[in-house]
Amino acid sequence: MALLDHGMLAHGMLAGLDEIADVGRDAARGGYSRHLWQGPDLELRAWFIERATRIGLDVETDRNGNLWAWWGEPGENAVVTGSHLDSVPGGGAYDGPLGVVSALNAVASLKNAGFQPSRPVAVVVFAEEEGSRFGVACLGSRLLTGAIDADRARSLVDRDGVTLAEAAALAGLDPRRLGVDREAIDRVGLFIELHVEQGRGLIDLQSPLAIASSILAHGRWRLTFTGQGNHAGATTMAERRDPMVAAARAILAVTEAAVASPDSRATVGRLEVVPGGTNVIASRVIAWLDARAPSDQQTRDLVADIEARIRLALAVTGCSLEVTEESWSGVVTFDPTVAEDLSVALGGTPLVAAPSIATPRIFTPRLSTGAGHDAGVLAAVVPSAMVFVRNPTGISHSPEEFAEAADCVAGVSALERMLRSVL
Amino acid sequence: MALLDHGMLAHGMLAGLDEIADVGRDAARGGYSRHLWQGPDLELRAWFIERATRIGLDVETDRNGNLWAWWGEPGENAVVTGSHLDSVPGGGAYDGPLGVVSALNAVASLKNAGFQPSRPVAVVVFAEEEGSRFGVACLGSRLLTGAIDADRARSLVDRDGVTLAEAAALAGLDPRRLGVDREAIDRVGLFIELHVEQGRGLIDLQSPLAIASSILAHGRWRLTFTGQGNHAGATTMAERRDPMVAAARAILAVTEAAVASPDSRATVGRLEVVPGGTNVIASRVIAWLDARAPSDQQTRDLVADIEARIRLALAVTGCSLEVTEESWSGVVTFDPTVAEDLSVALGGTPLVAAPSIATPRIFTPRLSTGAGHDAGVLAAVVPSAMVFVRNPTGISHSPEEFAEAADCVAGVSALERMLRSVL
Repeated sequence: MALLDHGMLAHGMLAGLDEIADVGRDAARGGYSRHLWQGPDLELRAWFIERATRIGLDVETDRNGNLWAWWGEPGENAVVTGSHLDSVPGGGAYDGPLGVVSALNAVASLKNAGFQPSRPVAVVVFAEEEGSRFGVACLGSRLLTGAIDADRARSLVDRDGVTLAEAAALAGLDPRRLGVDREAIDRVGLFIELHVEQGRGLIDLQSPLAIASSILAHGRWRLTFTGQGNHAGATTMAERRDPMVAAARAILAVTEAAVASPDSRATVGRLEVVPGGTNVIASRVIAWLDARAPSDQQTRDLVADIEARIRLALAVTGCSLEVTEESWSGVVTFDPTVAEDLSVALGGTPLVAAPSIATPRIFTPRLSTGAGHDAGVLAAVVPSAMVFVRNPTGISHSPEEFAEAADCVAGVSALERMLRSVL
Repeated sequence: MALLDHGMLAHGMLAGLDEIADVGRDAARGGYSRHLWQGPDLELRAWFIERATRIGLDVETDRNGNLWAWWGEPGENAVVTGSHLDSVPGGGAYDGPLGVVSALNAVASLKNAGFQPSRPVAVVVFAEEEGSRFGVACLGSRLLTGAIDADRARSLVDRDGVTLAEAAALAGLDPRRLGVDREAIDRVGLFIELHVEQGRGLIDLQSPLAIASSILAHGRWRLTFTGQGNHAGATTMAERRDPMVAAARAILAVTEAAVASPDSRATVGRLEVVPGGTNVIASRVIAWLDARAPSDQQTRDLVADIEARIRLALAVTGCSLEVTEESWSGVVTFDPTVAEDLSVALGGTPLVAAPSIATPRIFTPRLSTGAGHDAGVLAAVVPSAMVFVRNPTGISHSPEEFAEAADCVAGVSALERMLRSVL
């Protein structure tokens, strides 16, 4: 394995991660808060441009705010690798940046080794993968591929009432040009995203790496409970229509429905109380539902079951419910031929070959995930693959998310070999 | 009844209320958000000083930020009337300001009529009655009377991490001088607070006014639920320790316990989720409990019952709970002799006199309330009374809080007659 000039590791971590370790730290929540086009995200973008330029790549920003760092002339049938730099509120150091930094390291390593690619190569940074600012995950890749209507996207609003169109204009983009970018997406011949694993899959498999097989169907729904705001001391229990009680019943219904649906997950992780005073019965509570299941239909059924359970539980509260779908992502099955070819590039025997005593089966495990990714959005339009790097805590979207330096280096090495095999 | 120069009504409402009708409107929540020493509160303070000065009163700010507008020389055995100008988040137009404006109108009316008081008179505005900024209700009157420890008060923190000491310094006060103010409180011979009613008591009594008999014991407790933050998609339902589920169970336990305790109320009206991302299982949820009951012991028992129910419900969630008392107010019984004297001043027959056919019993009804008030804090150290004005919606701490102009005028008239009777 070729190393960078200054080695693949720096300060005990994958080189590059150390350089952004202080950007966007969130003292209140712990971890990092890096949201689209706000201070830390802008700092990370500037860092990426500088870092990519330093290894000889030419960086361009597309009309949706995604960054592309090209090795040589941009062109058709390109091999693209990368991930994202934004985070959830109080997220970990690896979710997103590991894929970007690994891509930069792998490309730098190939360049340093004098490798001459036969196809254009780019390292990409997708915008707003987590949907932490505007509520729709994978917003940059959805806009790029046309998976979200541009008019709907332009009118998305952040917590301060700023629209995506306004934020894009502030970031130097032309908001009228947001939306499907045929020129940019048509150049992509293959997309490979390396990502820290977000569950316990690789712990259980005792493997540092896996290749993605599929992503659960998933979506986000906004649940608005409306009751009657009133005085917490002067209003008897019998007189109340308290949307906080309605939301509490709903949260329990969400869990019950998810437990009843095989291999499914449903979560309320964000909740807003209006007006939010200690001595005030709320008038409105907004809860965001994240629901995921192994098929589109099962996810739709799960959400329908959740809504039915909530409406049943709501009857005694005197409150009303409005449900709004904020985003939807159908189940993704990554192209098994691409995955197989990349697995073989890693030195594994084909999955279809029968093992023998002479040549024992060696392969990179396949892993399904419940986490959404830009590679899942791109998989609908171009051949795409993902590599997962083991997370020894099994915890993600949290400061406790982690990856051992040795596993990160194994990830870069695997990515480099995959690139060699297709270039 | 004497009227002000320009009449008791302006723009269809009690004169004075019209002048502050646009201060601190909250577009997001509806109603008003007027919190201690922030923009709208500062504007209201400036307005009060100007308004009081215009009718010939001399305004001073005490060491705790309460405003006193004196008619003549400040001195011992003063008759003081007033209320507060701050609001809950998204509160109504009457809770607090009605008492201040009624006091100004009553004093102006007495002055205009050429009345010569035999005792000093002051109109008071207490600071942070709602506890919306620093979490402790009646903070200004508690500091004045020593009902809260000054060191504890100085270290109270608002939602932005600003301490009361820092905010007081910014407001031009000496934070070292916050705390019991013997000079100021020893001057008060009688305190009368007029306040909009916050429940349906006067609707049921079909009366525009009532005199307060008692205030429920009440307090605030912060409930912190800690679990394990994680990825909403990659974490199976079985692996979770989700504090949002714990908080939901707690909210239902709060309601169940309050319903089981006679004449009690318990509410969760404020809740914070950390980190608060849609695709993130929370790591911590903080819920604020407001609990009230007819006696101190019953309130303590209610909170103990709530905590026991929550701990039982928590077992299945794998989350932990920390309970912190933020404030406590014992039950208040207003001095019945003072109330009786003021009732007689309104032309009512004494409650103890037997009615006859010749002189039918006429009296102002007595009303107990579940809402805390500065008069409840002052009642522990000086003779205090309250007058409630009918609220035809029965709703308070909400934009729907209301008082008919005719009932407001009846309130000012009653306050004026009460002042005449003791001056």
